Order: sequence, then structure tokens, then C-alpha cells
Amino acid sequence: MIWNEARECMSRDELMTLQGERLVQLVKKVYHSVAYYRKKMQKEGLEPGDIRRIEDLSKLPFTTSEDLIQNGPFEFLAVPQSEIIRYHSSNATTGTELIIGCTRDDIEIWAECVARCIYMAGLGRNDTIQIAHNYGLFTGGLGAHYGAEKIGAAVVPSSTCSTDRLIKIMKEIHVTGIMCTPSYLLHIAKAIRNVREVGNLKLRAAICGMEIWPEKMRKEIEEMLGIRTHDVYGLSEFAGLGVACDCEYHKGLHVQEDFFAAEVLRKNSNILVKDGEKGELVFTTLQREGTPLLRYRTGDIAALTREQCGCGRTTARIDLFGGKTNDTIVIRGVSVFRLQLESMFAGINDVHARYLMRIYRTAGLDMVDVMVGLDETQELLLAQEKDFVKIKVTAAVRNLIGVTPNVLFANTEEIARMARGVSTVVDERSYR
Amino acid sequence: MIWNEARECMSRDELMTLQGERLVQLVKKVYHSVAYYRKKMQKEGLEPGDIRRIEDLSKLPFTTSEDLIQNGPFEFLAVPQSEIIRYHSSNATTGTELIIGCTRDDIEIWAECVARCIYMAGLGRNDTIQIAHNYGLFTGGLGAHYGAEKIGAAVVPSSTCSTDRLIKIMKEIHVTGIMCTPSYLLHIAKAIRNVREVGNLKLRAAICGMEIWPEKMRKEIEEMLGIRTHDVYGLSEFAGLGVACDCEYHKGLHVQEDFFAAEVLRKNSNILVKDGEKGELVFTTLQREGTPLLRYRTGDIAALTREQCGCGRTTARIDLFGGKTNDTIVIRGVSVFRLQLESMFAGINDVHARYLMRIYRTAGLDMVDVMVGLDETQELLLAQEKDFVKIKVTAAVRNLIGVTPNVLFANTEEIARMARGVSTVVDERSYR
Repeated sequence: MIWNEARECMSRDELMTLQGERLVQLVKKVYHSVAYYRKKMQKEGLEPGDIRRIEDLSKLPFTTSEDLIQNGPFEFLAVPQSEIIRYHSSNATTGTELIIGCTRDDIEIWAECVARCIYMAGLGRNDTIQIAHNYGLFTGGLGAHYGAEKIGAAVVPSSTCSTDRLIKIMKEIHVTGIMCTPSYLLHIAKAIRNVREVGNLKLRAAICGMEIWPEKMRKEIEEMLGIRTHDVYGLSEFAGLGVACDCEYHKGLHVQEDFFAAEVLRKNSNILVKDGEKGELVFTTLQREGTPLLRYRTGDIAALTREQCGCGRTTARIDLFGGKTNDTIVIRGVSVFRLQLESMFAGINDVHARYLMRIYRTAGLDMVDVMVGLDETQELLLAQEKDFVKIKVTAAVRNLIGVTPNVLFANTEEIARMARGVSTVVDERSYR
Repeated sequence: MIWNEARECMSRDELMTLQGERLVQLVKKVYHSVAYYRKKMQKEGLEPGDIRRIEDLSKLPFTTSEDLIQNGPFEFLAVPQSEIIRYHSSNATTGTELIIGCTRDDIEIWAECVARCIYMAGLGRNDTIQIAHNYGLFTGGLGAHYGAEKIGAAVVPSSTCSTDRLIKIMKEIHVTGIMCTPSYLLHIAKAIRNVREVGNLKLRAAICGMEIWPEKMRKEIEEMLGIRTHDVYGLSEFAGLGVACDCEYHKGLHVQEDFFAAEVLRKNSNILVKDGEKGELVFTTLQREGTPLLRYRTGDIAALTREQCGCGRTTARIDLFGGKTNDTIVIRGVSVFRLQLESMFAGINDVHARYLMRIYRTAGLDMVDVMVGLDETQELLLAQEKDFVKIKVTAAVRNLIGVTPNVLFANTEEIARMARGVSTVVDERSYR
């Protein structure tokens, strides 16, 4: 099923012409309305007139998440604030939020992208789609929601309900599709199996994203539930869920190239790699009005292919490898810099203790333990003091990543041993 | 500011003519498409032709939440399932969810109702509105969201962020309006005062609802933040947030009467009371397509007035008194039957203990403590057993009402004393 054949199946030549036209418009716009880009372009002796076709993309300056963070919430807006109808945010380093503004057209395009992904997964207007992504500043929930609504499917916004209730509703109203993070889907799949409800469900397909999942996990879910699964890509910082999705051939994720120009650069350099080679994924938002971005360095490691796919779509595909060029950790779909976690711990004052954060998976779900080292004076041993520490640490972690940690007490030596004397954050999960 | 003057300020005669036309259509529709209503009408010897004007409303049968629960998720749908684009739910007694289906027009009308409420609160397209209601099956979040989007305001979906982060964003992107439950707004107000940010905010107005709040609390919030506040009414079971809202005169909440016909009945009877007299609020959804309801008994105690308001709106207003005719408890905006809470506790097996749930307010926020009575054999004293009990109880409570309780251990005598030998649920909050 192809949602927008005219766009998803156009010839590569037509697509590049379209991308070129949009790039020319984009560069004019950001040059005149975003002081940050104007300065950057002027510094490199570039004028809007120098950009005439999509091949000129490589002349343009890059944008990093640090650029967005350091310049505050309004610096990158290319339209007056009155045209913004939605703000989204990705968690950012201490001090400033990384905030993105969307116009009405941006929301419309976002819904269009997600609608294409839903069709790619074989779901359509007669389906009932349960959305278990977090709705809020995070772009998973509302992105999935608007896309599903656009195709005319019935949406079941199950973002805040318990897994038990989610399964109960899934059964009662004959849900046929689900959208959530892959780790949560595995968790749901196990719960469904435990209550022996697999045979009583009408679930046919799942579209999972905002997190890297290994092939093994995918197969495990498909076998447990007897459904198809599809991988969807997006990043809150630059466009939200729906930038790319994989079709029934599962040979990489089709990029919505009329809206996003994709490049892959050699790690820590500015050199483009050849198709099929691994590197850092870079996106330019060709039609975004609120917060348009030139060559946004996603930090994600991927390879690009432009070979045509058996599904008939002509769009380039990306193969994601789950690594990050920068020191980012993704916990339940939320990206945080390792540095943010470290400085969060440093910021827990009133409490004198050593911390170690352990990230691992149980039943496919990301779990966070925070171990607090008891200091030698043992003053923390008092139950009431411990409760105080627990509350402080729980609040700080939840504030930063939205996950409630298990807070455990350990002796400082044990912590030093686990951290191998260096890090306060130990990520025990392994991907592919 | 009046969003839809043609509708909100029409003469009472015109309004009643419009209501009459819509009621005639509604009755025809439900008679032919909802077996439940057809049977009920036939039993009372009623045919669609007997309903010719709004005054005939009182001939029609009632609907209660029990009717909705007992008849399952699809029984009340008046359109084919393929026309439903959204499902919402109110928590229901064990076994079946109370599920409501919305068509595209239902969502559009819902947004229209909320848009009117936002204008009533003096907020418009140039405002930035933070929505801190829960987005999901609950109708607070998505209701507020679509209404704010309809007027063209910038929406900041802050549903899942911590209060600290909410305040940080409020300050950084110059938020001017907020929508949430009143108890949560009081909590936010105190947090803003504690971090001494009141003077650094642009907040002008708040629209709060899905919970009863005393006048004293309202004044307290207004004084703390130097803002106007408005009360909005709605119930997940029958139409969601936005059924009624109060204008700048604060003389009761204006009902969106072109969409909802309001009646007030003497408590536990079918007799209409006079304007100004207290009774049970009953609503008929005049234009709802998905789950249209005839004379839905809300259980809310209110008085109705049709005297014209100084704001120019001609719509009837309701004054809510915070009581419930049935044994419903509202915790952080979610309605639960006392019976549900009792049966939830009865359902926690594997654990042999006595429970007491205590509902109270701290800093304006509804809090839930669950006290677990240790039985005489003291087997629960083992730390690990206690953890097990805590997890079980926490999951059960969160599953039912979405609130994480504090689980405390007490001796059985203490519990018996607090419960006065009868109830397992003690509600310590007092309203007006």
C-alpha cells in the first residue's frame, strides 16, 4: 500500500529537481529570517544565489544539536512567533531546552509523513490503531496520532494507561495496529503471552520507532504475536517521528525525500561517503517553516542506498546501525547526553554520596537503577535520610529522562568496582 | 471575547428552535441505529415521531454510566465502526471499559466547544497555551489540545513533563495561558512562587477543569500568580472537556447549548427542578454522531439559570456544587466508583492483609495513601515481602486511577480505627 504514489514513486530525476527547487527556497528563507544561518553563510562567503540545485547542498553549513541548544528557543525560528501553533522539545543539557516550533503546514507535513509510514506497514482507514507512545513534548505520541488520524484510521490514544489496561482495550475494541517504542512492544508482547490472549486479538501490524532495535528483537516480537513489524525513524530535534520507515521488503527505511534531503558523512568529518558505506546521517528539512534546519548532524550511524526497492518506491533508504557519533544515550526513546546525566548527578546537592547509574533491559524494557554509595560516616543509614535521598535522586532522574529509576544503596567500593573507577553511567544494553 | 457569536448569543427562541430540530434528528438516528434506545423507547410506547420540539425531551428515556458499562464498547455506537476515528474511555468498573467513539465531526465539534471556552477565558490566536492535562484515553488533554489548535494558538503539550520543566518552558517560551486540573495548577503556582519566578512569567489566564475546585482555591491561585482563572466542565463518558465554561462574570458556566441540552432533575427522581434549584445535571448530546446519548445522568449536583449574562452570551449557565448523586470519587480528575476501589482491593490476591485507602490534599494536589495492615503472623515484616506487597498494591491502584499511591504499613487496629470499622476508602478532602 502506497499513500502518496505521486511523491513516493517519482523518478529520481524528478525527485532531485523537486529537492533542488525546495532547497533554493529554503536557503533564501533561512538567509533572510535566521540570523544564525545568515552569519554562518556570510562567514563562508555564501549567498542564496549560490544554491541552485540539490547538488549544491554540500556547500551549506552544518547544524548540530549543540547549535540549537546554545542559541535558545527562538533563534532558529524562521517565521514570526504568531505563526507557530506547536512547540516540541527534546531534552537538552542543563540550562536551556532544545525547543522546536511548528507552523500549521509543518504539522500537516508531519502528518503526511506518518500517514505514508502507516500505509507502508499495510494499515489504512479501516484499521484501529493504538498509540502507546508518550504524548507531549516528545514527538512520538502526537506524531503518530496525527498521521493515523490523517489516513482516517480509528485512533486509540493509550499513552498513559497501564499495560494490562492497554491489552484489555486492544482486545475489546479489536485493535489491528499499534505504534510505540520497540522495547515497549516487546514488553506488551510478553504480557499478552502471559495472559494467553494472543489468539483473542486482531492485531496485524506494529510500527515502532524512536529507539534502535536489533533484528533478533524484531523477529521475537513478530513470532510471539504473529504480526508484521515496521521500523520508523525520526528525531524530536529536527522533525519528529515519520522521517523514514521500512516497507514490506525490510531493506532499509524509505526516506521521505521530498521533505528531507539525506546525506551520510564520514564520522567526525565533512566528507560524504559512497552509497552503502557507514557514516553519520545528516538531514536538511526541505519544507519546514517553523524551525528549518540545514544539514542537521543527527549523530546516528547509518548507510544510504538509492537502489530501487521491490515495493515500487523510488526513495532512498537508510540502514541504521544503532550507534551514535556523539556521546548520546537513548533511554526509552529519549536521547540524553552522557554529560547531562553526569551533571545531573553533580547537581544533586544536600546529599553527599557517590552515584552510579546502570541502564539495562528487562523483558525488553529499558530499566534504570541508580546506586547510591553510602559514605563512611554512615549517616545515610537512617531510614529517613535514605527516603530523602531516594526522593531527590528519583526526582532528578525523572526530570531529565522521564523514567522513574530504582534507587538502591550500595557501599562505595562496590560502586567504584562497577564503574571501573571512571564513569557514573554504565549502559549494559547491547544492540545488534 | 466571543468565538462564535452567531451561536453563543442567539435569542433563546432561536436557540430552542435549533435544539428542537437537532433533537428530532437525534431521536430518529438513535431509534434506527442503537438497539438499546429503540428497545427502551418501544417499551415506553415512544416513536421518533413523538419528538417534535425541545420540550419533548422530557418524554425520552435516561442513560446512566451503568447502562454504558453493561452494554460493552460497541452497543451505543450509532455509526458503522469504520466512521469512528477516535476512541476515548472513562475508567469503569471491573470487567468492561466505558468506551466512547468519535467521528471526524464529533472531534470537530469538540474542538469548537473548547475553542469557545478558550475565548471565554480571554485567550486567542496570539497566545501560547501550555496543556498539562493527561493526554490519552482521558478527554482532558486531547480536548484542550484540539481546541487550542482550532483557535490558532501555539500549543505546548507539557502533559508528561515534571513541574520544574513545565515552569522552565513556561518562562522560556513566554507561555500566556495554561490548561490543567485546578489542583495541579495550585501545585504549579506554589512551585512558581518557591522558585521566585512569578515576576518573570507572561502567564495571563488559566482554564481548569475535570475536577471541582472551591472558590477559595481559585482566589488563592489567582492571587499567587496574578492571573485570571476560568472553570471548564466536561465528562469523559459523554463528551469530554468543553461542555461548559465560565466567562469573565463568573456567574456559572455557559453551556454550549446548541450541542448539549441541559436539564436538572431532583436527586434520585425524574422530576425537573426550577431554575436556580439544585439537582442532578442531565445532558443530551444533540449533535454527537459516534456515541450519541439521550438524557445522560451525570451524577453531578448543579443548578441551572437561563437569565442573560453580562457578557452578552444568551446560553444557560450551570453552577456546580461538587457533590455526586452516586458514590463516585474524583481523584486528579478521574472519576471512580467507590465500589470499584473496594473491589480493586478485594482483587489483590496472593496478599493476605487489610487495606485502607486515604485520599487527601497536599499543596492542592490529590494524594493517595494506601495503608496495608500487617496480619498477626507478621510474615509481611520481611523486607522482600513488603516490597512485593508494595508493587502489587501500587500496580492495582495505578491501573484503576492512574495515580501512584504511597504504600504504608500499619497495624490492623490502626486501620480499623481510621476506617471506623466500615469503609476501606476514606476521602479526607473537603470542597466548598
